[in-house]
Amino acid sequence: MSPHTLNTADDPSTIDPILAAAAAAAVPLALLAPEVRAGGLCLIADRLEADVDQLVTIAESETGLTPTRLRGELKRTAVQLRLFAESVIDGSYVDARIDEADDQFVLGTRPDLRRSLRPVGPVLNFAASNFPFAFSVAGGDSAAALAAGCPLIVKVHSGHPKLSVATGEIMAQALFDAGFPSGAFALIFGQQTGVDSLKDSRIQAGSFTGSISAGRLLADIAAARPQPIQFFGELGSVNPAVVTPAALNERRDTIATGFVSSVSGSAGQLCTKPGFLFAPTNHGLDSGISEAARSIPPHRLLNPRIADSYAKGVASALSLPGVRPIVEGMCAPVADGNMSVTPTIAAVSLTDFISSPQSLHEEVFGPFSLIVEYDSLDDVAAAIAKAFQGNLTGTLHLSMSEQAGTASEAALASVRTLTDLFALMVGRLVFNDWPTGVSVTPAQQHGGPWPATTNDSSTSVGTAAIQRFLRPVAFQGAPEHLLPPELQLKNPRGLKQTINSAGASARWGLLDS
Amino acid sequence: MSPHTLNTADDPSTIDPILAAAAAAAVPLALLAPEVRAGGLCLIADRLEADVDQLVTIAESETGLTPTRLRGELKRTAVQLRLFAESVIDGSYVDARIDEADDQFVLGTRPDLRRSLRPVGPVLNFAASNFPFAFSVAGGDSAAALAAGCPLIVKVHSGHPKLSVATGEIMAQALFDAGFPSGAFALIFGQQTGVDSLKDSRIQAGSFTGSISAGRLLADIAAARPQPIQFFGELGSVNPAVVTPAALNERRDTIATGFVSSVSGSAGQLCTKPGFLFAPTNHGLDSGISEAARSIPPHRLLNPRIADSYAKGVASALSLPGVRPIVEGMCAPVADGNMSVTPTIAAVSLTDFISSPQSLHEEVFGPFSLIVEYDSLDDVAAAIAKAFQGNLTGTLHLSMSEQAGTASEAALASVRTLTDLFALMVGRLVFNDWPTGVSVTPAQQHGGPWPATTNDSSTSVGTAAIQRFLRPVAFQGAPEHLLPPELQLKNPRGLKQTINSAGASARWGLLDS
Repeated sequence: MSPHTLNTADDPSTIDPILAAAAAAAVPLALLAPEVRAGGLCLIADRLEADVDQLVTIAESETGLTPTRLRGELKRTAVQLRLFAESVIDGSYVDARIDEADDQFVLGTRPDLRRSLRPVGPVLNFAASNFPFAFSVAGGDSAAALAAGCPLIVKVHSGHPKLSVATGEIMAQALFDAGFPSGAFALIFGQQTGVDSLKDSRIQAGSFTGSISAGRLLADIAAARPQPIQFFGELGSVNPAVVTPAALNERRDTIATGFVSSVSGSAGQLCTKPGFLFAPTNHGLDSGISEAARSIPPHRLLNPRIADSYAKGVASALSLPGVRPIVEGMCAPVADGNMSVTPTIAAVSLTDFISSPQSLHEEVFGPFSLIVEYDSLDDVAAAIAKAFQGNLTGTLHLSMSEQAGTASEAALASVRTLTDLFALMVGRLVFNDWPTGVSVTPAQQHGGPWPATTNDSSTSVGTAAIQRFLRPVAFQGAPEHLLPPELQLKNPRGLKQTINSAGASARWGLLDS
Repeated sequence: MSPHTLNTADDPSTIDPILAAAAAAAVPLALLAPEVRAGGLCLIADRLEADVDQLVTIAESETGLTPTRLRGELKRTAVQLRLFAESVIDGSYVDARIDEADDQFVLGTRPDLRRSLRPVGPVLNFAASNFPFAFSVAGGDSAAALAAGCPLIVKVHSGHPKLSVATGEIMAQALFDAGFPSGAFALIFGQQTGVDSLKDSRIQAGSFTGSISAGRLLADIAAARPQPIQFFGELGSVNPAVVTPAALNERRDTIATGFVSSVSGSAGQLCTKPGFLFAPTNHGLDSGISEAARSIPPHRLLNPRIADSYAKGVASALSLPGVRPIVEGMCAPVADGNMSVTPTIAAVSLTDFISSPQSLHEEVFGPFSLIVEYDSLDDVAAAIAKAFQGNLTGTLHLSMSEQAGTASEAALASVRTLTDLFALMVGRLVFNDWPTGVSVTPAQQHGGPWPATTNDSSTSVGTAAIQRFLRPVAFQGAPEHLLPPELQLKNPRGLKQTINSAGASARWGLLDS
């Protein structure tokens, strides 16, 4: 293998060659054989794993996350790349539809029409601070863009620049060795460099994971371009969780420890941390929660900005009328303006919660959560609908008979109301488990209406994410030699094709009343 | 059947009950059985067809479109409704994915996760002027929203208010009779009413067909909301068509007549009208085009605004350096500031085209088209890439040997270059046919990058349009009785489910190098 240089731009004046190379790579990448795309993703995965010791050492020093967590995250990142490779080889994500020419179609003669999902062109991905591997340079959106056949530019997060370069060098070499065209991948540094690139007409889609304020700023830029583009930002989520009275009676201790663990993992710096737990008044969870919280060791927060915002958020919540602390964690200053913390958990009545200012209903990024104490489960759905907008997750802890559907009709009606509400306002409904720990599978959905995301049409975790960077294209009357392989009737790759599915006469006859 | 009143709002002060009813209908509609949704769509179709004489009479007087065209459009609208009904019954559009709990998954234990596409909630659809049936009150986006299980509010186009009310009354009664919940459907009137509704937090998605200026205004409003939403605007397209030298030699006369017919149908007031035909210098098409154009009868334009804009656009194009008229059509004033027209077709050299002001590269809505004369086919792709942005369609007229793939390598290389370019910049590639006449089938794609649309992730024609108004939702560890039918393992509707598709060990072993 010959050495390949990672393409980078450090300031706005140096981005033009990067963008030009990405634009020039759009057609070659779209035409690149699936085996080559999959091979590139797998090679990145292999080499990340081969360099795990070095990469985790850099990541630990830059982020303060634990080696155990970082090793797990690197493993997830590698598996994620291979799962996308598997999707590329499987090929069913292109949703190939073939409607053959038909002079007896219900609307009269129709031409031969074939449609599949094709790459959109150059993608700009803004890396996140809190997942230096899985949502960063080689993370989910990057894997999805390359899997889709799109040139990829990653805007590095300032929280882990050395790790980003180390990862980027591995990726650039792996893609080069696998046969990707020059221009398929580059890194850029700095906020203004990112903003200027997002405004550039050569960028055809954007993605982002981070704060509501930064995500909104970028989404607005993408929407205000002369040519607006799709922008997939994953921003903020408070992840309401509800415990029914019967569930609490059955598993009070398990719920207390599971809740504290979910709130405290990675120092609560997870977008799926349960920020609110709706539990019956007199829930009796205090002692279990206190005990579980005492076993959580101090954890450095990711950066001084997050530390400052966390300390203010906790202080503000605890100062509001009716808010009762259950566990008051530490917020101890460490080097460089940062902070080391342990979990803080408080409680408030549903009445006080509803009448409190909007700030109490917003996300506090870090290991803080609020128990909202309700008198009747029937009041909870309305409170959630009133207090919250879109969320990544909504959680329900049910009793065995509620789970089995054998509880009283009244209890089941409440549970159904909450389920139906969550199905309109969250991306993932979690039953009898906690929302943190997001599985990477085809059925995962990591998204949700604003402010969970800027665009709720897709996911940022799981292989369905490939759909972000594809758009449908139809070919009418095209000769086989100009069709992409998935739309050829000889179907050289043996892919799933949906052929002549509409207006089928038998079924049509039933409908045509 | 008991009579049901159509809900309407005529000004911004009266929209609140409409929006409140739509929001209240979101859960009931999401839970409505597919048979009921399909039944409602079919009942609308039946009753529109039963009232065809009355409806076409109103439409003709309001739009100036011919009875033949309007009858065809109503038929298309009815079939479109039934095709969506068929999709609802088929159910595969929900993309049901089931990943069962697995403690041997490649990333360790994974929970049971199931994902399908669910309705987004209330949809606001802005009707178009140029398709009073197929892109209006009962048109494609309306059918897609109701099929998806979303409450629907249609903002009526001012060009055909009486037809809109007549159509709306039929729809309201049919949906009521079919068992749709109250609040599932309403009409609103007036620009400000539409804008205020789009800004309302209860609306969860928008759609629009019309001009670039109006569409951009609405897209910007949707993006600037406190809660941004998806907005599917279909705006402007010039639909470049290319004739190769060999194709011209084989079918000069057919190309001349087909071109004129495609430019002139419905007085060129179609978003897929071929606005530019790239043909070899000395193409010899003038006489064929002139003769075909003489047989086109005068046609009233839709409204005075379109008439004014058309007259100005044609005059501006003809005044530019190097533009040579082939046929100069009539622009005769008729009643109410409107105009009756016949086609105008002109020609310009590729050199003059490239150096002409941007205005010559933009859409002229009406029966005008420009032939761009090239010396070498190799120059055409670069000219198209430079002059145009996104388009609904791109057309290639090939010779028999180019179509068969047996032409010279040089000829095929040019054709492949144009195909690859179009695959990045248009929604539909048309071979050896004309782009007007958009078939309603599962494989149709009516979309394209800006300015063809504001959002290129879906189509506005064909049954794939249902995906506009759906968003993915995952259920983790959910009991069967709380899962939507498509995600239950007992699969009561017998729908397509993709089960445990990732990390399959055999395939995985191949990739895990």
